[in-house]
Amino acid sequence: MSANTTTGRPLRITVWNEGVHEAQHDPASMAVNYPDGIHGAIAQGLAEHFPDAAIRTAVLADEEHGLTEEVLADTNVLLWWGHRAHAEVDDAVVDRVQRHVLAGMGLLVLHSAHFSKIFIRLLGTTCSLLWRNEGERELVWNVDPTHPIAQGIESPIIIPEQEMYGEYFDIPAPDELVFISSFEGGEIFRSGITFTRGRGRIFYFSPGDQEYPVYHQKQIRQVLANGVAWASQPEVRRESPTVQHPEREWFAR
Amino acid sequence: MSANTTTGRPLRITVWNEGVHEAQHDPASMAVNYPDGIHGAIAQGLAEHFPDAAIRTAVLADEEHGLTEEVLADTNVLLWWGHRAHAEVDDAVVDRVQRHVLAGMGLLVLHSAHFSKIFIRLLGTTCSLLWRNEGERELVWNVDPTHPIAQGIESPIIIPEQEMYGEYFDIPAPDELVFISSFEGGEIFRSGITFTRGRGRIFYFSPGDQEYPVYHQKQIRQVLANGVAWASQPEVRRESPTVQHPEREWFAR
Amino acid sequence: MSANTTTGRPLRITVWNEGVHEAQHDPASMAVNYPDGIHGAIAQGLAEHFPDAAIRTAVLADEEHGLTEEVLADTNVLLWWGHRAHAEVDDAVVDRVQRHVLAGMGLLVLHSAHFSKIFIRLLGTTCSLLWRNEGERELVWNVDPTHPIAQGIESPIIIPEQEMYGEYFDIPAPDELVFISSFEGGEIFRSGITFTRGRGRIFYFSPGDQEYPVYHQKQIRQVLANGVAWASQPEVRRESPTVQHPEREWFAR
Amino acid sequence: MSANTTTGRPLRITVWNEGVHEAQHDPASMAVNYPDGIHGAIAQGLAEHFPDAAIRTAVLADEEHGLTEEVLADTNVLLWWGHRAHAEVDDAVVDRVQRHVLAGMGLLVLHSAHFSKIFIRLLGTTCSLLWRNEGERELVWNVDPTHPIAQGIESPIIIPEQEMYGEYFDIPAPDELVFISSFEGGEIFRSGITFTRGRGRIFYFSPGDQEYPVYHQKQIRQVLANGVAWASQPEVRRESPTVQHPEREWFAR
Repeated sequence: MSANTTTGRPLRITVWNEGVHEAQHDPASMAVNYPDGIHGAIAQGLAEHFPDAAIRTAVLADEEHGLTEEVLADTNVLLWWGHRAHAEVDDAVVDRVQRHVLAGMGLLVLHSAHFSKIFIRLLGTTCSLLWRNEGERELVWNVDPTHPIAQGIESPIIIPEQEMYGEYFDIPAPDELVFISSFEGGEIFRSGITFTRGRGRIFYFSPGDQEYPVYHQKQIRQVLANGVAWASQPEVRRESPTVQHPEREWFAR
Repeated sequence: MSANTTTGRPLRITVWNEGVHEAQHDPASMAVNYPDGIHGAIAQGLAEHFPDAAIRTAVLADEEHGLTEEVLADTNVLLWWGHRAHAEVDDAVVDRVQRHVLAGMGLLVLHSAHFSKIFIRLLGTTCSLLWRNEGERELVWNVDPTHPIAQGIESPIIIPEQEMYGEYFDIPAPDELVFISSFEGGEIFRSGITFTRGRGRIFYFSPGDQEYPVYHQKQIRQVLANGVAWASQPEVRRESPTVQHPEREWFAR
Repeated sequence: MSANTTTGRPLRITVWNEGVHEAQHDPASMAVNYPDGIHGAIAQGLAEHFPDAAIRTAVLADEEHGLTEEVLADTNVLLWWGHRAHAEVDDAVVDRVQRHVLAGMGLLVLHSAHFSKIFIRLLGTTCSLLWRNEGERELVWNVDPTHPIAQGIESPIIIPEQEMYGEYFDIPAPDELVFISSFEGGEIFRSGITFTRGRGRIFYFSPGDQEYPVYHQKQIRQVLANGVAWASQPEVRRESPTVQHPEREWFAR
Repeated sequence: MSANTTTGRPLRITVWNEGVHEAQHDPASMAVNYPDGIHGAIAQGLAEHFPDAAIRTAVLADEEHGLTEEVLADTNVLLWWGHRAHAEVDDAVVDRVQRHVLAGMGLLVLHSAHFSKIFIRLLGTTCSLLWRNEGERELVWNVDPTHPIAQGIESPIIIPEQEMYGEYFDIPAPDELVFISSFEGGEIFRSGITFTRGRGRIFYFSPGDQEYPVYHQKQIRQVLANGVAWASQPEVRRESPTVQHPEREWFAR
């Protein structure tokens, strides 16, 4: 897969994970499902699709959470996974990530990161939802079949066991609704949605949890790769919109 | 419930049904579930919510299908139910209904009327979908809790037995997505959606079928009443947008 | 005009203004155009449309900026005007206003308040734009003629002299685009736009400036009154969406 | 420019023009501005951007208007220009074009083709607007700067002389609003808008008229090339959505 670039530079991807389930060996199944961490599994899946990409990972425990100005400036698309430690993410890092998104960096927000500071900051709402963790089957249905993020995806994707996320999901009306999930217990969820904020593209995708090996599924990896390709804008100069104060008829000069 | 009117005139509602299941006594359960026809049950439900409204019904077998220029000019909101006889609806009547919708008449399109000529005409797509009739439980989830059509509605509405409608539903991206349904078999469906076309407001609501007594459920009747109140624009002059050819600075005179 | 309420309680409106131009007597024309302050003129216009409403005003210099928990709990719709002192608004008050909006309070954001903390907080973007203050004629065109906020409005509204606001306006794609303005110098601006966030409705309307008597124009006052009626949801309990953790089949009990 | 394809086949583009102004030599300026016809100028501009593409033209006078099943099946993106002869376009050809769009063919609708049968068919509204032909300057402003159709475009594009198209433009709310134009006389117009219908992508772009050499402007040609690249989906099998009638749990087999 090419990432829609004409710059010739390899795609630069950063996979961020708080890394707390990994550090705490909790749940115990982490050792089986995610021996290299959730970020490791995600990075591995992306590497299958983008063999030429420069893929790095970063975690909460890294200095500045591994998200320095230099790293973000060198990132086309950032993926964000968090669950237990949202509150521990430094506001200065959140400011920095927001600034880069508004200036053109792509952002994939995954599963329990619906409650991350960066997602709430960019959307403005509580991002609350229904949840229940009983290993229910999730079906991920495609409702926008020609969307770039849905290419090569069979509908539905079947996830044998998953945490249930249900509506009402308190988000702004998404720019595009790509996937809707149903769960064995009958709940539904807008599970694949896009937002544009400033110059940046954001894709939220809910499947993926510390207790289940979701990020090893082929179709889930395809969705994430599609999301990265869609959110990546290598030709767009990293530049935030700013106030302008032009004279009359400036454009005619 | 008031219908948001300042005109003082009672709300005028027309419930249209092809009336074919009724005429054919097929399914046999029609005699039990819909002794006054599907249109009769819908009209009865609306009368509970709008005791002062002028509610009429009309069927395919009526002259001009009961939808003369006079009737439409005297209708704030038209409800449309059809299934077996879409092809028998006269194109001249479809033209007339489309003209009135674009000029400000509200339209509620119900269940199998996703395949009606008028819905396809207004949306431009095939309006095709998945279906299976095995009496599955449908759950109707509200994803826009402050929408006028969702007022007073518990989420989910539980319909014990229903025909399954599933995605992909080939429609334009709706202006507003109010309800998403799940079915026992795992499928999901965008079951309550709005579109504005010209000056007219359109609400499609999928629950309701000839085999099940859905239109007798209290919450379903509330949704239809909310839909009628939302689609009704008694203050809007019935007037289609037209081409204008103004002089320069016409507005300053 | 009624405010779409069935509660029987009068509508409660709070008009907030930083009040800095007033305190500084700058520009000098304030004494002529806004002897009672910009908030005074706005409140006066609303009182013409809602004679029964309880309308209060509040300014930055008031304790807690006049926006205590009690005041917000007793406010259906808050109007916000600010320009010079955005940075002086207490973050704790911004938190409180955001919480009330997400829980169902309406918010009208006016003119230079595009740069207010509360607007940026709710939208997540920089809200930057083009500007030039040379007293150019602004034409406000209606592109959604049956929207409730456009009722009774002639298109275009002619504002003889105004500050120019131009695109690119860095906002999320609005839920609804109601007005687009053009200016003598040729720039255009999305000048009337709606957003829903949580349970709250937000209307941004750009006309209105400290240098020009815009808030005395009849049609501008009509737009603000329409905006208040649209954003007001007196039947909605003031309650923020929250996380729920239900058992399986909870809805069937 | 590549057209986002991995198929290796050259992009196939068909430029359709009614060709009536050309045949009637009216206006006389056609001989100067469009010696090869409007379709010729558009095709020439596209050839500059897609040197490897297979670009054909077709006109009303051709058999089946040059739009046979074979031609459409071999077309990734169709461009449509018409003005005087909308009514002479055969309904059977309109049916065919609509079927191909819903099945995945891209469609660019240009200028006065807002009144073409195919555009009205796909949108469902009257598509009426304001117009005045006095050679006013049009400024085309970009309000979605990272949209693929806006890449490489300066904002505003300046068109020295153009026919004015103004609001209200009676269309459904577009999926994406990319450009808004202002005119010397003060009117504004949603001049670059996208719609997805079925599997097909549609871009309407209003600049371009028989009286002015608009299709020779470099930036206009860039917009059309961007539109073609965006609307082209060479990987999508040409297949209309259809009704499916699956068994329970079909997806699990």
